[in-house]
Amino acid sequence: MSRDTLSAAFAALADPTRRAILDRLLRGEASVTELAEPFAMTPRAVSKHVAVLEAAGLVTRGRDAQRRPSRIRAEPLADIDAWLRSYRRLWEERFDRLDARLAEQQDEENGSK
Amino acid sequence: MSRDTLSAAFAALADPTRRAILDRLLRGEASVTELAEPFAMTPRAVSKHVAVLEAAGLVTRGRDAQRRPSRIRAEPLADIDAWLRSYRRLWEERFDRLDARLAEQQDEENGSK
Repeated sequence: MSRDTLSAAFAALADPTRRAILDRLLRGEASVTELAEPFAMTPRAVSKHVAVLEAAGLVTRGRDAQRRPSRIRAEPLADIDAWLRSYRRLWEERFDRLDARLAEQQDEENGSK
Repeated sequence: MSRDTLSAAFAALADPTRRAILDRLLRGEASVTELAEPFAMTPRAVSKHVAVLEAAGLVTRGRDAQRRPSRIRAEPLADIDAWLRSYRRLWEERFDRLDARLAEQQDEENGSK
């Protein structure tokens, strides 16, 4: 795993196919063959994406030599969630202001009735 | 801006210096010169990082021809936050289970007193 786990997680997620693979794994573990089907990709191409996810700690693979099913590891996602925390106020404050403005408009409309 | 804004945002954030620049901008807008100081980087190197953040929609730059101050744009971060939503239960459920286990242990300890 990379020394900078947050950077590795962000880099791994910067690809729509890898995000789609994670979305699929949210419904349960899957082998490379099972992952390849809905994506119309070769198992070889899927394997490469899974390897990137695994190197970033976003996926672990089972020991079953035949299937080696992939499973999500939540930790790097929780790290990103924690990193986002200090930025969250940027859009939450904006939503609060929008709410306040809507409430004012409603008050004005009610007042003019 | 990239057609796949989520991928562009993840790629831009996959660099610790660019995340540090965003952290700095959370305290208010700053020119490239102001950004370069704490990072002990050349303004040229900072400019390149800011350009990547700008291309990903994470930063806008002011029109002031001299300073062109950078400012955070929250939208791509809010998009990442929304994308994380379906995964959040993975670690929240885990925390719930941990909480339940701790509560059980506490009950057992209280029971054995």
